[in-house]
Amino acid sequence: MKKLTLNVGKKYDILIEKNLLDNCGKLIREVSKAKKAGIITDSNVGLFYAERVKESLEKEGFEVFIHIFRAGEQSKNFESIYRMLCFLAENTFTRSDIVVALGGGVTGDMAGFTAASYMRGIDFVQIPTSLLAQIDSSVGGKTGVDLPQGKNLCGAFWQPRRVIIDPEVLSTLPKAFFTDGMAEAIKAGCIKDKALFERLEKENAPDFIEDMIYSCVDMKRKVVENDEREKGERMLLNFGHTLGHAIEKYYDFKGLSHGQAVAVGMVLVTRASEKAGITEKGTTERLIELIKKYGLPFEDKAELAELLKITRSDKKMSNSGLNFVMLKEIGESFTKPLTVEQTEEFFS
Amino acid sequence: MKKLTLNVGKKYDILIEKNLLDNCGKLIREVSKAKKAGIITDSNVGLFYAERVKESLEKEGFEVFIHIFRAGEQSKNFESIYRMLCFLAENTFTRSDIVVALGGGVTGDMAGFTAASYMRGIDFVQIPTSLLAQIDSSVGGKTGVDLPQGKNLCGAFWQPRRVIIDPEVLSTLPKAFFTDGMAEAIKAGCIKDKALFERLEKENAPDFIEDMIYSCVDMKRKVVENDEREKGERMLLNFGHTLGHAIEKYYDFKGLSHGQAVAVGMVLVTRASEKAGITEKGTTERLIELIKKYGLPFEDKAELAELLKITRSDKKMSNSGLNFVMLKEIGESFTKPLTVEQTEEFFS
Repeated sequence: MKKLTLNVGKKYDILIEKNLLDNCGKLIREVSKAKKAGIITDSNVGLFYAERVKESLEKEGFEVFIHIFRAGEQSKNFESIYRMLCFLAENTFTRSDIVVALGGGVTGDMAGFTAASYMRGIDFVQIPTSLLAQIDSSVGGKTGVDLPQGKNLCGAFWQPRRVIIDPEVLSTLPKAFFTDGMAEAIKAGCIKDKALFERLEKENAPDFIEDMIYSCVDMKRKVVENDEREKGERMLLNFGHTLGHAIEKYYDFKGLSHGQAVAVGMVLVTRASEKAGITEKGTTERLIELIKKYGLPFEDKAELAELLKITRSDKKMSNSGLNFVMLKEIGESFTKPLTVEQTEEFFS
Repeated sequence: MKKLTLNVGKKYDILIEKNLLDNCGKLIREVSKAKKAGIITDSNVGLFYAERVKESLEKEGFEVFIHIFRAGEQSKNFESIYRMLCFLAENTFTRSDIVVALGGGVTGDMAGFTAASYMRGIDFVQIPTSLLAQIDSSVGGKTGVDLPQGKNLCGAFWQPRRVIIDPEVLSTLPKAFFTDGMAEAIKAGCIKDKALFERLEKENAPDFIEDMIYSCVDMKRKVVENDEREKGERMLLNFGHTLGHAIEKYYDFKGLSHGQAVAVGMVLVTRASEKAGITEKGTTERLIELIKKYGLPFEDKAELAELLKITRSDKKMSNSGLNFVMLKEIGESFTKPLTVEQTEEFFS
């Protein structure tokens, strides 16, 4: 079993191993004296895994309750949070009981915010089941829910007591759950981990899945430890995300998936920075090749001018100016603030 | 101006002075570089003070937005929180903007939770306008909202950037807002501050209102600093609250007010502990006299056996057993755990 320890506030472990799911009760008991465990999961993942997790928890003496919400981004709303809180209250969960988030990013975000808010905060454990959640969203303590005005506008920083990653679950879930996450794996290589990038080039990700997850989580761990509340270094994680987010919004979140949009976003910014002489020559080409290898798109018909317009209107939501993360070379990244005028020129 | 500094996480000041309201813009500017300020207030308090606060904020260059919700405990629900979050999002508040909670306990609790949750936490300032909020609920960082299953079941620990207390506002609001708070002032004297208790006996509270608020806040400050997340000493603040809460619940929160119920609760527990030889003789009599002096009830027709039943059923919500706060004498308190059987005997 691979193990990482994240050191923010209370320390917690991130455990990675195939078939860990059957052992999750024991791993949760190690960090919790709870009488009750509330599994929060969606209608897709719940079907596959809720009973397995329940059995494992019951073996350790937890009284287990399951709350299932309808799978999909459209469920990520305040009404769902309300139902999750009521689920805990109806079953008289106390401050010493525990929430188990079983699912992808949407589940982790909402179950985490529910745990953060119930009785002003109770423990929770993440069992991420999509690649994206395993290498990215389950690590770092960001929880949240959408408002009609925008994504993740409501939330809390709330760290799990443990993250249990079973790469085996990826093989039973639809392939899209894997491909989408590969964009974040490629991003991890780009911004901080040249060795990972090169291994992704040479080998095939599923063949070294545990190593890959470990590398990605370890990269994120370091960044989060330095900057829990996202004021500095954590911004590097946004490589490809500024324009990626604009692409998602361009299609009203019904077109490209998050991973697909990030892939295109990484190419767009790297092409521009390479042209401007900021990024080592040939980087864009290498990036495109890798993105293609893992079944992600490297371009989109959405017009750049439109995307920049969306980014600028998003900017109202942040006082910090238009910050773009760029590569110096594969494995080395930095943040560059651009004014509106500079942005026009940079991407022209 | 009286000033206390609360030292939990980030330090913040609690300022007390008559007519501070007209100066609040400057006092908020000292702790915030926000462009926008969102005043959250209810339909009673808003009518009296929202414009005054707005003007003061505008003088300091804040762009001011006001959100008014319907006054009353029945508004303390999840739907109200949703509207408050949307209010901030619609007006494109950023992470560096600020929420101003202007009102009593309900307002402070909900505006505080909204600030804690919007974009995973933005700054807020408390301007408490009821005596109860001024000496109790605005200090300590507890924010929350009710669920159908119980009060304050959802919330966060989120400290304000500053607390601005203007005792002058108490004279313009209905007398009930003053009387209700006196129960908490008497409680403060009982558990930690004999001098305050004696001054409340000898003098008339409105005649030394700033001193009284200062003493109460100072007492709470010390307790909160030692125990931000309510694991030990902070429990002493629950003197009179265990049975008081049961009385409120007995009438489905439509009978006695919080302060009235706490007053009765303090008498019930002190009478029993004095009878058991735990509390100095004569304490109950002194307590009753003081409670009567400030227009609060010292007894209620609700049967003790019924109240204990409610308390025990509440106990499901807490793994920590039935804890009662008792007095050794005026100004000295401690927590005593009682089993169900002991409780029966103790109150017989």
